[in-house]
Amino acid sequence: MTSVNNPPADPGCVFCKIVAGSIPCHKVFETEHLLSFLDIGPLARGHILLIPKAHYVTLDELPEDLAAGCAQALPRLARALKAATGASDYNLLENNGALAGQVVKHVHFHLIPRAEGDGLGYRWPAGKLDAAEAERLKKAFAAELG
Amino acid sequence: MTSVNNPPADPGCVFCKIVAGSIPCHKVFETEHLLSFLDIGPLARGHILLIPKAHYVTLDELPEDLAAGCAQALPRLARALKAATGASDYNLLENNGALAGQVVKHVHFHLIPRAEGDGLGYRWPAGKLDAAEAERLKKAFAAELG
Repeated sequence: MTSVNNPPADPGCVFCKIVAGSIPCHKVFETEHLLSFLDIGPLARGHILLIPKAHYVTLDELPEDLAAGCAQALPRLARALKAATGASDYNLLENNGALAGQVVKHVHFHLIPRAEGDGLGYRWPAGKLDAAEAERLKKAFAAELG
Repeated sequence: MTSVNNPPADPGCVFCKIVAGSIPCHKVFETEHLLSFLDIGPLARGHILLIPKAHYVTLDELPEDLAAGCAQALPRLARALKAATGASDYNLLENNGALAGQVVKHVHFHLIPRAEGDGLGYRWPAGKLDAAEAERLKKAFAAELG
């Protein structure tokens, strides 16, 4: 996985401080490049975060191999979440940018156990995709993705 | 990536039908194992889905290499989403189980562009993690993660 070219730790970043050990965390999992710990402002019992140790702000900035490394750990973490909390259902959520609810500017994946009537969840006012708009969007994506 | 041992397509699954081509989609990206297309019930303009072609229901069931393969594609898709829509901010969301809002029972990652005042987002009634609960949870995770 990328490491030589990773950006340096951000001295103002709370997650970089957790990685460095200067702020404690309730660690549940660690590898050379990843760290997972309990969210201290949990949305549900057992809410955990998974972060790359290197300081990247958003998903679109992550090197592909580091993004892959994060996700490689997710099935196992999700199984542990289910076993540890008894929840059968859960959300994976990762916010990019302040408008998307990102507070700590260091990529982090939330795993949030869900229960009947917990009041959590994404607001879901689904629209409808019309054909002309779909064509415009497909062209716009194709311009980027080839 | 895993392919030999993947489960067969589910004949009742709309995403398996999209993968097979028997239901159309507005495709934006495709590899041997992955497919990305416009959500037809978009929460925002340019809302896309990324799915593994193989039929797995939830993240915890995904083989690690296939989970990694999905995420490897995400930084590039996220950059394309930003370029195609002009959005700077976005959510990555993946729902597991009906209580978590999963409707189609085939793993899918949402990329949802965000804008000021769009009314979207995760309901965020953060609690507080106390030390005794944290210790109990860490032990429960450790029982699974070693």
